[in-house]
Amino acid sequence: MPNDISALADRQDLYALSLEGQRLLFTEARTALKFSDEPVDDEQLRAIWELFKWAPTGSNLSPMRILYVRTDDAKKRLVPLLTPPNRPKSESAPVVAVVAVDSEFGEYGAHLCPSVPGLQEVLAANPALRDASGNFNAALQAGYFVLAVRAAGLAAGPMKGFNAEAVDAEFFPDGRWKSILLVNIGRPAEDAWGERMPRLAYEQAVQLV
Amino acid sequence: MPNDISALADRQDLYALSLEGQRLLFTEARTALKFSDEPVDDEQLRAIWELFKWAPTGSNLSPMRILYVRTDDAKKRLVPLLTPPNRPKSESAPVVAVVAVDSEFGEYGAHLCPSVPGLQEVLAANPALRDASGNFNAALQAGYFVLAVRAAGLAAGPMKGFNAEAVDAEFFPDGRWKSILLVNIGRPAEDAWGERMPRLAYEQAVQLV
Repeated sequence: MPNDISALADRQDLYALSLEGQRLLFTEARTALKFSDEPVDDEQLRAIWELFKWAPTGSNLSPMRILYVRTDDAKKRLVPLLTPPNRPKSESAPVVAVVAVDSEFGEYGAHLCPSVPGLQEVLAANPALRDASGNFNAALQAGYFVLAVRAAGLAAGPMKGFNAEAVDAEFFPDGRWKSILLVNIGRPAEDAWGERMPRLAYEQAVQLV
Repeated sequence: MPNDISALADRQDLYALSLEGQRLLFTEARTALKFSDEPVDDEQLRAIWELFKWAPTGSNLSPMRILYVRTDDAKKRLVPLLTPPNRPKSESAPVVAVVAVDSEFGEYGAHLCPSVPGLQEVLAANPALRDASGNFNAALQAGYFVLAVRAAGLAAGPMKGFNAEAVDAEFFPDGRWKSILLVNIGRPAEDAWGERMPRLAYEQAVQLV
């Protein structure tokens, strides 16, 4: 039963998160493709951050950054850099988060990980390690971010279909932040959803030894 | 106030997730460094999956895989491949999840994304695209996984400090799965926690246009 969203719905003793929370974040949450006109204000964006920031990263270095694109002018600069099928999604979203990795995230090493002195210097001396760590941890944080958006009662629409080099040139001309994902954010329109796609069976993705 | 976990605690109207859920997954959740003897059973591992599997990935291709290491024999094969400071953490954990990317995740393309025919062939013809997509989406899913473990009432201890090549040679000798992260899982011991480290300020990580 690959599309049975409640395979364990009769086993709520297995969860610490309430059934409402499970539905909000996981089992009934969907990727919105179209948004209502309801705006998203500054406090809502800060509320997302106040949850998101606590989820763990390697050596606590937290390399993910967010550019929220909200104004009409900024949206007009962004939308042409998306693949054509993604343009109407971001056009209808009151906010589009450009999720990025800060290539100089090591700068905050002494502040974020005081128990490991010299992290900034180690990363600066090893750009391959720095980039691998930054890219992995920023993608890990992007997962936290999608769920934090949902926790704030907003629909999220993550998308990889955009020209990252062009987005970086347009919005991050100093070269420090590198875009890795876009997330449309807002209240879903009534017809926001596509058909739900299947998932792998447990046995296809999980092994035990 | 970088370590104030409740900067918006008086603004619960900004959240759809309950305060209890916020605490469980984000604001009071911590990376456990030591675990109690209480075992984690098969149903708990499946409960994690039943939430985790629904979180979104690019073209729904869901490349992350999990090897749960539970038996004494398997633990003895794994622990020497960790950096020395990480060994006692995994030794005390009833389960260690080896989080991996399936390098042949495109095999399930027709099943997982039927609306885009030929995905498997596109990925097979472009190994660089396949690996970039697999690595990004598996890391994104690792973020969902950490929060799903917490939703199941268990403590998670994600760690990058291990010899990935040696783990792959030991546990994935056919070369198909590639380890990207370890996550210790169980009930926390009483002295499971280190000091909580600071986080970036909103203004250091977020921009608006």
